[in-house]
Amino acid sequence: MINYDRRSFFPLKKKINTTDISSLIFQHVLDKKFTNIFEILDLSSLRKLRKNSVIFSNNNLLPSESKNINFLLITDNFKLFKNNTYKNIILVKNLSHVYNLILNAIFIHEDNINDKIKYKSVNDSYLCDQSLIDKSANIGINCVIGRGVIIGKNCIIKNNVVIKNSILGDNVVISDNTTIGSTGFGFNINNMGSKNLSPQLGIVVINDNVHIGSNCTIDRGKIDETIIGQNCMLDNLIHIGHNVIIGKNVCIAAQTGISGSVIIGDNVIIGGQVGMTGHITIGNNVKIAAKSGVTKSIPNNMTVAGFPAVNINEWKRNIIKIKKWK
Amino acid sequence: MINYDRRSFFPLKKKINTTDISSLIFQHVLDKKFTNIFEILDLSSLRKLRKNSVIFSNNNLLPSESKNINFLLITDNFKLFKNNTYKNIILVKNLSHVYNLILNAIFIHEDNINDKIKYKSVNDSYLCDQSLIDKSANIGINCVIGRGVIIGKNCIIKNNVVIKNSILGDNVVISDNTTIGSTGFGFNINNMGSKNLSPQLGIVVINDNVHIGSNCTIDRGKIDETIIGQNCMLDNLIHIGHNVIIGKNVCIAAQTGISGSVIIGDNVIIGGQVGMTGHITIGNNVKIAAKSGVTKSIPNNMTVAGFPAVNINEWKRNIIKIKKWK
Amino acid sequence: MINYDRRSFFPLKKKINTTDISSLIFQHVLDKKFTNIFEILDLSSLRKLRKNSVIFSNNNLLPSESKNINFLLITDNFKLFKNNTYKNIILVKNLSHVYNLILNAIFIHEDNINDKIKYKSVNDSYLCDQSLIDKSANIGINCVIGRGVIIGKNCIIKNNVVIKNSILGDNVVISDNTTIGSTGFGFNINNMGSKNLSPQLGIVVINDNVHIGSNCTIDRGKIDETIIGQNCMLDNLIHIGHNVIIGKNVCIAAQTGISGSVIIGDNVIIGGQVGMTGHITIGNNVKIAAKSGVTKSIPNNMTVAGFPAVNINEWKRNIIKIKKWK
Repeated sequence: MINYDRRSFFPLKKKINTTDISSLIFQHVLDKKFTNIFEILDLSSLRKLRKNSVIFSNNNLLPSESKNINFLLITDNFKLFKNNTYKNIILVKNLSHVYNLILNAIFIHEDNINDKIKYKSVNDSYLCDQSLIDKSANIGINCVIGRGVIIGKNCIIKNNVVIKNSILGDNVVISDNTTIGSTGFGFNINNMGSKNLSPQLGIVVINDNVHIGSNCTIDRGKIDETIIGQNCMLDNLIHIGHNVIIGKNVCIAAQTGISGSVIIGDNVIIGGQVGMTGHITIGNNVKIAAKSGVTKSIPNNMTVAGFPAVNINEWKRNIIKIKKWK
Repeated sequence: MINYDRRSFFPLKKKINTTDISSLIFQHVLDKKFTNIFEILDLSSLRKLRKNSVIFSNNNLLPSESKNINFLLITDNFKLFKNNTYKNIILVKNLSHVYNLILNAIFIHEDNINDKIKYKSVNDSYLCDQSLIDKSANIGINCVIGRGVIIGKNCIIKNNVVIKNSILGDNVVISDNTTIGSTGFGFNINNMGSKNLSPQLGIVVINDNVHIGSNCTIDRGKIDETIIGQNCMLDNLIHIGHNVIIGKNVCIAAQTGISGSVIIGDNVIIGGQVGMTGHITIGNNVKIAAKSGVTKSIPNNMTVAGFPAVNINEWKRNIIKIKKWK
Repeated sequence: MINYDRRSFFPLKKKINTTDISSLIFQHVLDKKFTNIFEILDLSSLRKLRKNSVIFSNNNLLPSESKNINFLLITDNFKLFKNNTYKNIILVKNLSHVYNLILNAIFIHEDNINDKIKYKSVNDSYLCDQSLIDKSANIGINCVIGRGVIIGKNCIIKNNVVIKNSILGDNVVISDNTTIGSTGFGFNINNMGSKNLSPQLGIVVINDNVHIGSNCTIDRGKIDETIIGQNCMLDNLIHIGHNVIIGKNVCIAAQTGISGSVIIGDNVIIGGQVGMTGHITIGNNVKIAAKSGVTKSIPNNMTVAGFPAVNINEWKRNIIKIKKWK
């Protein structure tokens, strides 16, 4: 498990406490309940509750450690508000809008016009002062290494690579023209426009010995992490959406796209030009044939093909059926 | 409607008038008729006739305002030549070759070997002197902003982005490693090779509040504009071909490709890895499921899926049919 | 046929002879037979045997000129070892591991941490001292031109382009953000991780008058060449895998991916978002409809569509069949 301080990637704009937040969104507040006042320093997700954080939820599935930590819950769920579990809670209308409003007020991020990062030019690449790059790493030409980025031992970053909001382990190779840690594609479909993109305040974690090809895009998590497990091999022109978690020893061929919040197990082999619906889970040792469109979760050890992807033998039978029919 | 001077993107090589053009292509001229002589300063399409322009057509569907404007029509259609509607007309053989010959003689463009643009280095990006970038815009590292480009207020251009031959409105976000305004993929299929690419002398217009992801390619129009409407949200690794016109509030998921001259209405939602045949029209409020291959125009409000894309309910029924058959 | 010295792209790390190699891999050697000792300067494939080279094979299909050339054969095939055809041969276990071990010991390449290339900055691009760029070529901004690269007359290399381990003919156009000559995606599927990528020591050869779009990736060969034939036209976001050989006058639309070792004939037209299985052969004058998934070789003059791709008329019949069935 990676430990990091969100603020090293997304600095705070100013000191802000729970009362300030209530004032900031007063137009949207239906009711509120405060037990104590504390400074907001972080952001929590339903996956992980963090100290002195704000968390947004329309249901009550908060993580179990919630009792010992100061957090402010913001919800549009009246039942959640009514029960007496939460010490500090605000009931709002239009939760997704309030999410954007608060997080843009708290955090500096790259989709804010005022996020101007200072770089130093080193060997014809641009490294942010606040990045931490191991001396053994080999950084190519015209790269941009953003604020907070950590790059481990013996990494090879080729040319024209952009790495932001990311932590890389050892022996990671990133090939040319690839973009790591850019904005996830998250917003309310009924309220589009660049200014309505939900702030994406998570990061990308790339574990040891991962190889990533050329012209790929790996988006950072919305609140938590997009994770690529040890020894994964990614080919060119691959898209990995926000919050995706990929296990160890996963091989992904060119031009495949993994939608947001997909979870992939260990030892999975994925062909080229595969697509996946968001929020599904792919088991361990699964094999996915090229050009498959995976629309639902796949259990361990299965081999699938086609669109919608089914057991590969069923897919083959279907092709023969169609051929034979008159 | 955007007004711009084509020459700010594609400067004239030299003064050239209608008689010069006739001389230039004399080997290909079958017949000609001149009423007056004028300088050629622009290029027209069947969509829009422009003053002092040359226009190429193999049919007679010229725009209605044609009578009050000086233009030179070049055609390979004998019937068009014979009727007496046009004051200045040249009948040629091999129209596509003549198109290339004339436009390469008139205009400087980036597929000419002699188009060497001068840039100034500003904050580690390269901006052409003749570009017009609002002071509030935030331009990242290693970007290239080409001749004539206009960038509006509060735009965020991330890193390693190339923008050429384009006009951007306000609040536009372009993510890393994306290419805007490069050459459209237009040529005579019987006459390939880099030197036979039809000069692409249009531009890209990106309206206010558009968000474009990482590693995308948006090609400029051939004569007119490739247009992205207000509030559109584009994910990563998307391809938009030349002359495509996209309405407002359109959402496009990763790795989708829109072929040349497609017209897309407002409020359209397009999944990932979708492909479209060129020259089709997608109505308002259409939804296109991921991985669809859209081969013909779609009326308003329809939801489609599959390849060839059909009504999504029909697509689902087909899948069940195939599963059940023996 | 292109002639080049592999060492101009991949310099030797140190002098190494056949005996040194035997020592290097002693843990994996089962048996060996040496007739003479010579220095290893090159690498051979089953397609082409080169002087003073090492060659890896698990079968005996060596090229016919093998008798007049000094080469060291390394194999895991006992029968191959037993017959007396080869003057210098080592029998090993774990051939793919031995391949990596030897080639990483002999050659410097970009996936070695110690491969730090020196560049000079010319017109805001970075050119390796050992590259050979014709004076008439027009190199854009922020490009990286690697060691050994040769660029012919009147080539146009746009902006943010990376070209490594490649030879370009005349009049080649490479559009923005494209990556040429990066690492092929080759490794033993049972032994993943960035350090286990098989060294890719081949190059890319792009012949005269080729046009390549924006944000494409063309991987170099593993041992021999990835070849793009004269007059080929490639659109944007295309992936060409290692060892692919493409004939003349081939047109490839956007977002298509060609897997490793595919051979494509002349005058082939390939639609957008097509995928191909590796190691197949596409005949001359073949047409492949958009979104096809080509899983086996296609004879000359055929037009295919669908996934798996079949004769386009059969594909159309299948669609009608499914529609009609109840």
